[in-house]
Amino acid sequence: MNPLIGTDKMGHTFPGATVPFGAVQLSPDTDTLSYEVDGKYNKNVYKYCAGYQYADKTIVGFSHTHFSGTGHSDLGDLLIMPTVGKLQLNPGTVNDPVSGYRSGYTHANEVAEADYYKVKLDKYNIIAELTTTTRVGVHQYTFPKSDSAHIILDLMAGIYNYPDKNVWAFVRIENDTLVTGYRQTNGWARTRTVYFAMVFSRPIREYGFQNNTKKEVYRGFWGKFDQSKNFPEMAGTQIRAYFNFKTEEGEKVKVKVALSPVSTANALENLRAEAPDWDFEQIKNAGQTAWEKELHKVEIQGDVALKQNFYTSMYHAFINPTVYMDVNGEYKGLDQNIHKADGFTNYTTFSLWDTHRALHPLFNILQPRHNADMISSMLAHYDQSAHHMLPVWSNSANENWCMIGYHAVSVIADAVVKGNAPFDANRALDACIATATHQSYGGLGEYMQVGYVPEDKSNASVSKTLEYAYDDWCIAQMAKKLNRMDVYETYMKRAQSFRNVYDASVGFMRPRMSDGNFKKNFDVLNTDEAGFVEGNSWNYSLYVPHDPIALIKIMGGEKRFVAHLDSLFTMQLPDKYFEATEDITRDGIIGNYVHGNEPSHHIAYLYNWTEQYWKTQERVRMILKKMYLPTPAGLSGNDDCGQMSAWYIFSTLGFYPVAPGSDRYDLGSPAVNDAIINMDNGKVLHIEVKGQGDKNVYVKKVLLNGVLIDRRYITHDEIMNGGTLTYYMSSKHN
Amino acid sequence: MNPLIGTDKMGHTFPGATVPFGAVQLSPDTDTLSYEVDGKYNKNVYKYCAGYQYADKTIVGFSHTHFSGTGHSDLGDLLIMPTVGKLQLNPGTVNDPVSGYRSGYTHANEVAEADYYKVKLDKYNIIAELTTTTRVGVHQYTFPKSDSAHIILDLMAGIYNYPDKNVWAFVRIENDTLVTGYRQTNGWARTRTVYFAMVFSRPIREYGFQNNTKKEVYRGFWGKFDQSKNFPEMAGTQIRAYFNFKTEEGEKVKVKVALSPVSTANALENLRAEAPDWDFEQIKNAGQTAWEKELHKVEIQGDVALKQNFYTSMYHAFINPTVYMDVNGEYKGLDQNIHKADGFTNYTTFSLWDTHRALHPLFNILQPRHNADMISSMLAHYDQSAHHMLPVWSNSANENWCMIGYHAVSVIADAVVKGNAPFDANRALDACIATATHQSYGGLGEYMQVGYVPEDKSNASVSKTLEYAYDDWCIAQMAKKLNRMDVYETYMKRAQSFRNVYDASVGFMRPRMSDGNFKKNFDVLNTDEAGFVEGNSWNYSLYVPHDPIALIKIMGGEKRFVAHLDSLFTMQLPDKYFEATEDITRDGIIGNYVHGNEPSHHIAYLYNWTEQYWKTQERVRMILKKMYLPTPAGLSGNDDCGQMSAWYIFSTLGFYPVAPGSDRYDLGSPAVNDAIINMDNGKVLHIEVKGQGDKNVYVKKVLLNGVLIDRRYITHDEIMNGGTLTYYMSSKHN
Repeated sequence: MNPLIGTDKMGHTFPGATVPFGAVQLSPDTDTLSYEVDGKYNKNVYKYCAGYQYADKTIVGFSHTHFSGTGHSDLGDLLIMPTVGKLQLNPGTVNDPVSGYRSGYTHANEVAEADYYKVKLDKYNIIAELTTTTRVGVHQYTFPKSDSAHIILDLMAGIYNYPDKNVWAFVRIENDTLVTGYRQTNGWARTRTVYFAMVFSRPIREYGFQNNTKKEVYRGFWGKFDQSKNFPEMAGTQIRAYFNFKTEEGEKVKVKVALSPVSTANALENLRAEAPDWDFEQIKNAGQTAWEKELHKVEIQGDVALKQNFYTSMYHAFINPTVYMDVNGEYKGLDQNIHKADGFTNYTTFSLWDTHRALHPLFNILQPRHNADMISSMLAHYDQSAHHMLPVWSNSANENWCMIGYHAVSVIADAVVKGNAPFDANRALDACIATATHQSYGGLGEYMQVGYVPEDKSNASVSKTLEYAYDDWCIAQMAKKLNRMDVYETYMKRAQSFRNVYDASVGFMRPRMSDGNFKKNFDVLNTDEAGFVEGNSWNYSLYVPHDPIALIKIMGGEKRFVAHLDSLFTMQLPDKYFEATEDITRDGIIGNYVHGNEPSHHIAYLYNWTEQYWKTQERVRMILKKMYLPTPAGLSGNDDCGQMSAWYIFSTLGFYPVAPGSDRYDLGSPAVNDAIINMDNGKVLHIEVKGQGDKNVYVKKVLLNGVLIDRRYITHDEIMNGGTLTYYMSSKHN
Repeated sequence: MNPLIGTDKMGHTFPGATVPFGAVQLSPDTDTLSYEVDGKYNKNVYKYCAGYQYADKTIVGFSHTHFSGTGHSDLGDLLIMPTVGKLQLNPGTVNDPVSGYRSGYTHANEVAEADYYKVKLDKYNIIAELTTTTRVGVHQYTFPKSDSAHIILDLMAGIYNYPDKNVWAFVRIENDTLVTGYRQTNGWARTRTVYFAMVFSRPIREYGFQNNTKKEVYRGFWGKFDQSKNFPEMAGTQIRAYFNFKTEEGEKVKVKVALSPVSTANALENLRAEAPDWDFEQIKNAGQTAWEKELHKVEIQGDVALKQNFYTSMYHAFINPTVYMDVNGEYKGLDQNIHKADGFTNYTTFSLWDTHRALHPLFNILQPRHNADMISSMLAHYDQSAHHMLPVWSNSANENWCMIGYHAVSVIADAVVKGNAPFDANRALDACIATATHQSYGGLGEYMQVGYVPEDKSNASVSKTLEYAYDDWCIAQMAKKLNRMDVYETYMKRAQSFRNVYDASVGFMRPRMSDGNFKKNFDVLNTDEAGFVEGNSWNYSLYVPHDPIALIKIMGGEKRFVAHLDSLFTMQLPDKYFEATEDITRDGIIGNYVHGNEPSHHIAYLYNWTEQYWKTQERVRMILKKMYLPTPAGLSGNDDCGQMSAWYIFSTLGFYPVAPGSDRYDLGSPAVNDAIINMDNGKVLHIEVKGQGDKNVYVKKVLLNGVLIDRRYITHDEIMNGGTLTYYMSSKHN
């Protein structure tokens, strides 16, 4: 396992410390850049979604919140930097690091482990070590001898930041070791506040603030005081604080920072509950033990690279969603009120357009309790939503509406259908229906009326239509399970809407207008502003995960369908189209197949519905090999909160959930030599792979508990019941 | 009683609706202006401390929070304006009211009563009526027939406003009659949020927002939606909302807006608890009944003008401080956490430099329970203060440090000495001591060290020294009562510090420097930057309320002292000095005596310590007559949260608390013909005035229960025990 995988270029993972699903992700930021320059979006900021780029030479500081693998971002709260010497309160620049508090570092002096990060800050000769509990970031700084040692708390710093993003900050020096406050931002989460309680292992000698807030009414009154030094309360939009110490050679100053979505009082309660003592090693050991437990839910055999990839994928899969609740059960709701979670742990960071595909299905196997709580969190979101909708992409008590569809219904249906639904499933179905009938959401009103989203009414109309159709099928499956057959009938009909955007005359899904005609200008390779999002028509035409049989039929039968699939993987995508493809490096595509973007994730498995099903095995193994490398630059696209990793985990084990909401996992080609899946129900599934080898990518036959599986899938129950799944591999396809 | 008194020019009172000590002050704003123009303080904004100026011709709207009589301001939250016709979402200007939503009005169509305000909005032919409960503002708008009736909620509007003051606003349309949200500002209260729940008596037909927020990260995602219309959640720094209706001729649309310092959930709870129904008349009647009860605690006989002045003073005295707590007992503390008041009602709006003088002493007679709760609120403030200090000028969970001294100790000592202290008085004394020893506060460290505030260390040093000395005496009195004699000794010594800034060579209090020498440049008539604040040396030299005997002695004896007093009232203050005098009209001074500024409030009573004590009677009656008129322009200076009114009430009744912290009220000259004071302890004090008349301003003798009072004061117990106080008046002094 190596947290540095994905930290170079497009993976957008972070190398720092976090526990499974932890609320704190304490990690170095090598830069963050401004989201806007001269009022315009700054394309370079995209690199810094996770705050860290492996190629960078300086570290600005260590902030407490990071998304893992996203393509947009926020967070980077409460950046802390230890320094010695002349106090510098600005971060400095890459080209002139001496001008600010940032420091050079080298990878030789860097250690990244699960819940532990260590680096030497060359400029200051300070060793920085980080670990966390669920809600507390723990810093251990080993200083040189200095009369002028500082710990800076930069409340201006943030990821995807620019001055207007900082709405407010409030800091109080409660006593000589305790600081409380909050940071409020207007970012991806539009109305977001992070509260904190910060304690030092040693008394602060003196402290002060730099307040860069532009304007303040009544500066006059505040002017009575020298607020810059030893004045115990500060507030404004642009604040930096510093705390001074005197250190002996090798002396450790430790800092614990607890977060809360609710209040500084709760942050302090979290701190006292989770990290009452100062034993850094003990906290680190507890975090690493927690990770060991999660990672060893699957024990695989394979070469070093495979293991690195696999366990790093497991690690990345269990970072998001994140706990969004204090130890006392309180959390901030979408209505910005404080709620108390009744019988569940509240989570946030739902990148559902990505994660409904494989991550949540993976959770139903490996994290059933967490997944159920995540659904309870989504239902709480629904209850609190002014739109009366389930989350689309939600974070920190905010809906940011990123991407399309209403894939929360897929996550819920998958759990219900698979029997992992310790919540009121009928209430959940009602929430799904309310969400799927919200007229003003992304052309949904028109979709309900005419069976497709007209491109002239709502853009990315084909992607939307296809994804709504799949989501509707999920609702139907859940309704069927709950024996609400009227709902089943209604949504099974809606699920066929994919037919309405298929243009048989060209053999592709194609945007359609309000008047019923297909859009005139149409380019099957174009993604942007062509009726699609994160995938062109060539890819999206294959997006009917819930009914490949019908898809094959409307596409002209198996031969033409396979030809379409083949072409996808083998064609050469012209540069101009590649440039419009978001989020991925050139290595991240195979022909016109873009693994870094999710709409393609089921595609390799679609051969399974044809007689050339062995091509699924071939393609999957190729993708596993080409798209995942155990290096910092090894991820070809954003990890997307674990979806890319979940794809890797499933595919490496030999099966994949093409259509979450069904209980079926399509068989692929395992890349392991052997695997054991330890499930929370006490059952164990042993995956034996006979005749594994680099060239033996084809599956001759599969046996479950010694009995031949005469179909191309296994079911959820078969997995959960444990036993032995035996793959017989070959270098030749059947 | 007439709420319009003080609304013209300098009174800074508001004409709108509020209940006694209510959290809501729902009142028309005729303008607010920007606090800054081109980055500089806008002097014109000063007129609009209460949002309303009687001479103005247009009303912008009705906002829910107003200070009463302050000299700086904040608030003006949640401005609502009903309109018909084309929707206009900007307020327009005075010179071009047609350009915005503001409307002309005339005083002929205006009614201002206790907890009731009514006005016709000429532009729209709408009758607006306002009333309140403690936490709910209730609007009743009688519309003409219109297909296009609007109610605007302007979250940009505010008093002492400018764009950067608006930190954040958040609004949710919960359903077709309920809207919730909050407004967060950076004003006099630096970190302040007002939460609200707003209900309409009729379903909203359609609604929308104007979002003038400059920048937003991820506008792109939000851009998916048309957020301007029927999108149920809005957030930003600059927001206006509108709600559309269709009205018949004479149709009433009612709006109830509940406030909370804590959350929208609490605001809704407040709404349901205090104003569950839609009966405007009933709510108004309840409010007016509450006022009747408070105002009739004193029943006076006198002419119409006197009664107008007196009952308006009573009204203004019982507006501030204001309730700052939800019906469930929750409030926001100075630490920005949510606290629950344990056994008291939490108050805010403590203008203590003003109100410790007469308002809180008045409360100890007429509002003992409220005063005790106010002190409990101050002690909660102390507990939550990062400075570990009692409030100086606090509002809405913020300390704004306005003015000087630590006069909370006076309020507390007065209550303790007078036996109205149902709180832990020893804990209160500890809080007073902690406050009085805060080294970095306004030269206090130096004061403690050398016995005065050196002008070169802290400005207004004479005012500070004198006020600290008085406050210290208060602490000593409280300590004596609590039998903590060491504290008593210490603070009685500190109370003599006034001696250290008296320059016998000139006969005036005079700024002194660190080196012990008096400041060279010294002008006894100058206020600004001369060692004083809101009073020149001529006035401040008389500021030893706790020890006039010593003052007379150091000033060279009674003859010179009386000459100083006389000169104050009779000299002609040159214009250049008047211009530097804040807060008052030219009518607001008598000679060099500035009644509109508080440091002079005890001065007329100082003659009582001399053989020319009859001059107290003469001066008091003159001040009552000249400084208080029953007209909109009738207040010569800011009412200062009721302090000016409290002075009027006491002086009109014939006695005044020169030194709160003692149990003594100095006898003056009653202006009533007769008065009955009904106290909460069930006792009644009857003030009989024999031989009252305009020229009979002199008191021949005073009898308490038929027994001659052979001193120039009565005690608190004498008042509280009730009975009959008989003044015998004469046109000639004794």
